[in-house]
Amino acid sequence: MPGFNPVEIILKKRDGKTLSPEELSAFITGFLADQIPEYQMSALLMACYFQGLNPAEIAALTQSYIASGDSLSFDASLAVADKHSTGGVGDKISLMLAPIAAALGLTVPMISGRGLGHTGGTLDKLEAIPGFRVQYTMAEFKALVEKHGYALVGQSERLVPADKRIYALRDVTATVESPGLITASIMSKKIAEGARHLVIDLKIGSGAFMPNIRRASELAESLIRTGESFGQKVRVLFTNMNSPLGRAVGNGLETAEAIEYLKGNPLPDTRLITEALVSRMLLSAGLYSSEEEALTAIAEVVSNGKALSKLEEIIRAQNGDPRVVEDYSLLGTAAHRVPVLAPWGGYVHSIDSRAIGYALVKVKAGRMKVSDTLDYGAGALLDPKIGDQVSAGQAIGEVLANDLSAAEEAARAIAAAYAIAEFPKTPEELILGEM
Amino acid sequence: MPGFNPVEIILKKRDGKTLSPEELSAFITGFLADQIPEYQMSALLMACYFQGLNPAEIAALTQSYIASGDSLSFDASLAVADKHSTGGVGDKISLMLAPIAAALGLTVPMISGRGLGHTGGTLDKLEAIPGFRVQYTMAEFKALVEKHGYALVGQSERLVPADKRIYALRDVTATVESPGLITASIMSKKIAEGARHLVIDLKIGSGAFMPNIRRASELAESLIRTGESFGQKVRVLFTNMNSPLGRAVGNGLETAEAIEYLKGNPLPDTRLITEALVSRMLLSAGLYSSEEEALTAIAEVVSNGKALSKLEEIIRAQNGDPRVVEDYSLLGTAAHRVPVLAPWGGYVHSIDSRAIGYALVKVKAGRMKVSDTLDYGAGALLDPKIGDQVSAGQAIGEVLANDLSAAEEAARAIAAAYAIAEFPKTPEELILGEM
Repeated sequence: MPGFNPVEIILKKRDGKTLSPEELSAFITGFLADQIPEYQMSALLMACYFQGLNPAEIAALTQSYIASGDSLSFDASLAVADKHSTGGVGDKISLMLAPIAAALGLTVPMISGRGLGHTGGTLDKLEAIPGFRVQYTMAEFKALVEKHGYALVGQSERLVPADKRIYALRDVTATVESPGLITASIMSKKIAEGARHLVIDLKIGSGAFMPNIRRASELAESLIRTGESFGQKVRVLFTNMNSPLGRAVGNGLETAEAIEYLKGNPLPDTRLITEALVSRMLLSAGLYSSEEEALTAIAEVVSNGKALSKLEEIIRAQNGDPRVVEDYSLLGTAAHRVPVLAPWGGYVHSIDSRAIGYALVKVKAGRMKVSDTLDYGAGALLDPKIGDQVSAGQAIGEVLANDLSAAEEAARAIAAAYAIAEFPKTPEELILGEM
Repeated sequence: MPGFNPVEIILKKRDGKTLSPEELSAFITGFLADQIPEYQMSALLMACYFQGLNPAEIAALTQSYIASGDSLSFDASLAVADKHSTGGVGDKISLMLAPIAAALGLTVPMISGRGLGHTGGTLDKLEAIPGFRVQYTMAEFKALVEKHGYALVGQSERLVPADKRIYALRDVTATVESPGLITASIMSKKIAEGARHLVIDLKIGSGAFMPNIRRASELAESLIRTGESFGQKVRVLFTNMNSPLGRAVGNGLETAEAIEYLKGNPLPDTRLITEALVSRMLLSAGLYSSEEEALTAIAEVVSNGKALSKLEEIIRAQNGDPRVVEDYSLLGTAAHRVPVLAPWGGYVHSIDSRAIGYALVKVKAGRMKVSDTLDYGAGALLDPKIGDQVSAGQAIGEVLANDLSAAEEAARAIAAAYAIAEFPKTPEELILGEM
């Protein structure tokens, strides 16, 4: 851009004006080329936080992100679909969803992330499998997906590098929670990976980033609109994150729970959400014409073992030890098991899922900094959901860890994360809405 | 601070919460110690721009700024007073005000800045005097002030270094125009230099940063309140910056105009504003009990040559060539004089003072970057004020420069900065209000 001045761009956004695609692109390109310093980028991000980005700006930003790296494109005959989750506690859905979807004929180029803070990450759960490799070049990833119908990898250096650098900056400058910036970050990766259908699990509640459905709806609208402008069909499911998902929280434990699901032993909540998400992927791609048919097909590939075979296939293909399917101890072990005791009897009225996530950082089931190391055998198995009845002193779960005092501390913190009262509480809906 | 996390501080301000003095101090201290990177400081500054700072936060920020360096303190028997101007075009008031105030018994520890963009800076005007030295240590500065009743210097390394670094960052991140940040920046320097009385010339109009009196009043309130919390008496004068001040715009030319004033030949507008500002300094310090008495005293030290002697005294004391008082050519010369021609006849309805300032950057009377060099002989002499009548083709002024084509370009740009219409225009008030 001739006469391009970064301060003018910041000023324009600060004053609530609309940035042109050229201005956004010049700013992103200049930043990636180290011509625009981080302090100007963070000032622009904060101005975006306050003034927002309109649909055209979000599409332009997404385009700039995509253009910063390489994109995949699959043969038009393939039904390429993916899922994105905004992150929760105990969320191992991807580990069941991807093999089920692949078993049913969808092509799933799934790129996952690592856990940070109270939320876990699919990559960490996969790495609990000894030998499992997650770093591939774009070309290797594409070959894996084409051969096996799916693959489970991490973000390569060449996939949307702009987002990688800008996300890291947002994280340390309090500019994460901006619908426009979130949209560009999510959608750029899902468009660059070549997905033509996308289902988003937008989590709401105590364990999620979105506190309420109003703000979640705004974000959903922005995601759908942005997908549309790139020819991608996006469906959004609002799901309840007031209780941790399933029973296990912790990397190896969650992977074991996922394998157990594919052996035909799903837990009710993970089953409901997995089926809801996969069925929408199938319907969006046109592989089935009704939800009923889709759900029947899903149940079939779980009961006949095809989905489990798909998981074993990708574990082998990605260098993992396939014996984990029979021997969960290969996913990590814990020297100590400390019960989580209900302090008094009554009904569970609410659960501070975020506090549970943070408590498990103490036993190394999660990390506070990217550089923290994980203990794959550590975590918790937690039974009660909102509305369940418990009795005083009852073991409502247990913490598994290799450090006893950390385990005891975590067990106490987790017990304190359950609000228990004598009067009954109606269980909550798992699926809160859809767009 | 134990557990101090910069992101939490940014988040808190972003969400409109109040920062404690400890939080502000920890952030500033961490930034100056290079423990907090510039990208976090700029994110915080942008959050401050949007959420504002309350009086307690502004006082705490000012205190943190002051604490980043050394402070001066003068003997309690001295009436220490200073003036601050928010900057305008042709503003050479300090050059008359300081010697007049010193001649009348005030102690004036005046620290000035350099020009940038369309506005000039007192330091540059002083440096048009051959040999004039402006860099002193805090101790040397204090000694000069105590000996001569005043001194005219630049900001030393040890005077509010926090402001120096943060102002530079604000300048390139579009976070200058925040009343709270402006207040801390101005007041920290004026408090650290030891002034107990402060008069602020808050300029409003086309050549100033403040577009209207409403926003200027908000800033004035903030300045007065902050001064109060440090025991400093602050008075604010709102002055009109729709016409350049005086006749000369350009460093050596303005210094010559100031000397001419002290020889008893003031121009009406610079005289009105200089007298208004000095009289408020005298009244605030209690040296006179009525404005009438103060104005009489001011007129006297100009007519009897005492103020001019004070200027000569400080020129000598600060290593300058005192012959400039008699020989203005020592302040710089210009090889070319190009008339500024009125394009048509009529009355001057408005003047784009900012455009005049920028036009004179072309002849090196001003600078766009801190590193640009100045030509002290370059500038313009401009006659008409708003309301004046001019005839078509009349020379309404002239550009003085050493580069002929730049001078011609500047003269054309300046001519275009006068809005002339056939119907009359009432002259504007120079003093728009006071707080």
